[in-house]
Amino acid sequence: MPALDTVLSRADANLDSSLERMFALCRIKSISTDPAYKEECARAATWLSDYLASLGFTSSVRPTPGHPMVVAHHEGAAPDAPHVLFYGHYDVQPVDPINLWETDPFEPTIKQTANGRKVITGRGTSDDKGQLLTFVEACRAFKETHGSLPVKVTILFEGEEESGSPSLKPFLEANAAELKADFALVCDTSMWDAETPAISAGLRGLVGEEIVVKAADRDLHSGYFGGAAANPIHILARILDGLHDDNGRVTLPGFYDGVEETPEDVKDSWKTLGMSDEKFLGEIGLSVPSGEKGRGVLESTWARPTAEVNGIIGGYTGDGFKTVIAAEASAKVSFRLVGKQNPDKIRESFRAYVKSKIPADCSVEFHKHGGSPAIQLPYDSALLNKAKAALSDEWPKPAVTIGMGGSIPIVGDFQKMLGMESLLAGFALSDDRIHSPNEKYELTSYHKGIRSWIRIMAALKG
Amino acid sequence: MPALDTVLSRADANLDSSLERMFALCRIKSISTDPAYKEECARAATWLSDYLASLGFTSSVRPTPGHPMVVAHHEGAAPDAPHVLFYGHYDVQPVDPINLWETDPFEPTIKQTANGRKVITGRGTSDDKGQLLTFVEACRAFKETHGSLPVKVTILFEGEEESGSPSLKPFLEANAAELKADFALVCDTSMWDAETPAISAGLRGLVGEEIVVKAADRDLHSGYFGGAAANPIHILARILDGLHDDNGRVTLPGFYDGVEETPEDVKDSWKTLGMSDEKFLGEIGLSVPSGEKGRGVLESTWARPTAEVNGIIGGYTGDGFKTVIAAEASAKVSFRLVGKQNPDKIRESFRAYVKSKIPADCSVEFHKHGGSPAIQLPYDSALLNKAKAALSDEWPKPAVTIGMGGSIPIVGDFQKMLGMESLLAGFALSDDRIHSPNEKYELTSYHKGIRSWIRIMAALKG
Repeated sequence: MPALDTVLSRADANLDSSLERMFALCRIKSISTDPAYKEECARAATWLSDYLASLGFTSSVRPTPGHPMVVAHHEGAAPDAPHVLFYGHYDVQPVDPINLWETDPFEPTIKQTANGRKVITGRGTSDDKGQLLTFVEACRAFKETHGSLPVKVTILFEGEEESGSPSLKPFLEANAAELKADFALVCDTSMWDAETPAISAGLRGLVGEEIVVKAADRDLHSGYFGGAAANPIHILARILDGLHDDNGRVTLPGFYDGVEETPEDVKDSWKTLGMSDEKFLGEIGLSVPSGEKGRGVLESTWARPTAEVNGIIGGYTGDGFKTVIAAEASAKVSFRLVGKQNPDKIRESFRAYVKSKIPADCSVEFHKHGGSPAIQLPYDSALLNKAKAALSDEWPKPAVTIGMGGSIPIVGDFQKMLGMESLLAGFALSDDRIHSPNEKYELTSYHKGIRSWIRIMAALKG
Repeated sequence: MPALDTVLSRADANLDSSLERMFALCRIKSISTDPAYKEECARAATWLSDYLASLGFTSSVRPTPGHPMVVAHHEGAAPDAPHVLFYGHYDVQPVDPINLWETDPFEPTIKQTANGRKVITGRGTSDDKGQLLTFVEACRAFKETHGSLPVKVTILFEGEEESGSPSLKPFLEANAAELKADFALVCDTSMWDAETPAISAGLRGLVGEEIVVKAADRDLHSGYFGGAAANPIHILARILDGLHDDNGRVTLPGFYDGVEETPEDVKDSWKTLGMSDEKFLGEIGLSVPSGEKGRGVLESTWARPTAEVNGIIGGYTGDGFKTVIAAEASAKVSFRLVGKQNPDKIRESFRAYVKSKIPADCSVEFHKHGGSPAIQLPYDSALLNKAKAALSDEWPKPAVTIGMGGSIPIVGDFQKMLGMESLLAGFALSDDRIHSPNEKYELTSYHKGIRSWIRIMAALKG
């Protein structure tokens, strides 16, 4: 396939300029959860739209009530070529705690690691700016060598993925005809390991809730009122502690409704991946699985639901000590869902449980932060098999089909609203520290990621 | 007693200038727990020393490894007059959350309340700058009318009371001969109510501990690691929830060692005070006693030990949501002690309990924040009875002897190190919001507080 080699070589020759583009995008502080960065989000959208237009796409920035979408179209070389919708997100997570970053999170930097690998550090390098550009740069290589793309491409970039995608559903609904394709390509996932590409078939859903427990009408001196006045931190601790039983199961009534056991053959296939609890946890400095007893880390993170407290604050948290009983305390709690767990019912059950733990003279406020059911994609399809073969050609080891602990609600929206299945392939690594200080993307992920999309697009055409 | 009336009238005439002095002292930002305010603490000490010198005291600022002490001496009119040591503290609590203050915490302001009372708002107006100046202004009135003081007075002002008084014991030890008096007067307590002065006979002790639970070596994405990696907020919630049983009792082994039941006659005398759970808690917007079941609010706050979480923080606590599993989470916990509870043993028991709850792959750090045993002063003594009579002459209702939930470790230090009992009289009110936003001191507390010390000093002389 000499034509393919030409495109791959072009991508290789482009690598330095491809990196410059990635750096430029990563310098934009498009933190979607913080209103202070609204203009930066708009700037990232414009940057992407302009770049796609320069590659010959019909591209536009589309306003939403939140951060804008970028939508771009390009015809395929042949009229009967398949039509793919490529999805990515240009928004990033906040960068705190900022003091733990070794370099400026918004000044991407190439570093050589102790084992000789080159990595690009910076917020968004992996999640998801670097990833989404792998596809754009693949398109560029095709355009520069053939003047065309092998498949018809629609691109959708959103800027609210890290804040629950509030504008996405209305946007898909209003623009269904324009966005509908034969299937979607989503690049927001990880490799199995640095040598083994992976396609994700199972995605956990997500329910986010913030609770604020309120007690006295002001902060109190714990000497005068301690032992008499309700302490909202105690109430919160009781609520959060009660979420799990001694076996690590979530205690909410009805929580496991719709959760099915993973088929044995799927679990067997995971066993062949050679992952152990020790290896999985060892990478992050831990060794003892914390979840449901008797289930391995892959099953726990890919196929079992969870409840995690993502943040908690109350009372005096500065230096030194202050003998205060706080007026209020709050926590952010998220649930990862699997199977047919219903996000609305989980939220209701959680709220009812919390209310049952609030003393008569105290109160609680709830704030909703997104909700989406789990997704199960087919473990076997023509699309999947073409993509796996293309990936296996590029990387040292054959591609594998895996589950995934994170949530990508868009995949469910594509299914329900556009009647379209997704293919989830990405080139992040589990140690990329996404959402954490010192996020990085491997130079190899970027380079071979671009080459992977070239191979996948070529395979989809045929 | 015409001489006494002269002094009282002088105090009345001085009120405006007395307020100016109090405002000047309260404008100094002497927050002892925050190193950023070190210079301000030194400035408060100098201000006080200079003022005492201007009244004829032999006064000096004494350096310590922390914030300085102020020590001042004045002879009594007669050679055989009793010798009193007056104690107060010029440091104040931090002012956060600053956004809840209605006026600048360091710009004292006189306001008229809805019920026509005049209050002075600002950090330290009640705790303890306004209180300590009641005694100084009483001395001034004596000096301006008689040129002398009825008793021999030594004054000790410290600047670390709000941060555990680390320099106090060594200072008392090094200066015992200079500081020893017949007894101590401590003005850091409250009235029973706005019409009823009170002398405090029981003081709870205090143990402060900060714990930091550490799990993974970095913040984690809860999608990838949730259900497998230890979550330090869960561990912390389990630890804190487990501190109390369903009856509100503290569960630490040995916690109640040395706790004795309050004598029935003392409890009976408290019943005559006319306090109810509803009234006590109603003032702060609550209604359900939260402590040990079956004990009223006065017993719970005066005569029973407690465990209170004063602060907690972990994970993402900003706006919006971040699906992170934190690397660490921390809490500040304090125990109020009564009877003969041993602070060191309580701390040991707490640390052993916490360690028992830490999974094998996680760790915990402890930070000590002060410790002092409870104090029980006599319910009946000549000193107490003289002071009660003097207070009863000044206020609408007779003085009462009460317990106290807070901790004033200095009282124990005076007992042990200087062999000296203390008389605890103060003019704060329970709604003064000390340690909270919008701290205030009643104008009446200040005015009649000055008059009260004039009466007490006159009574002690005879």
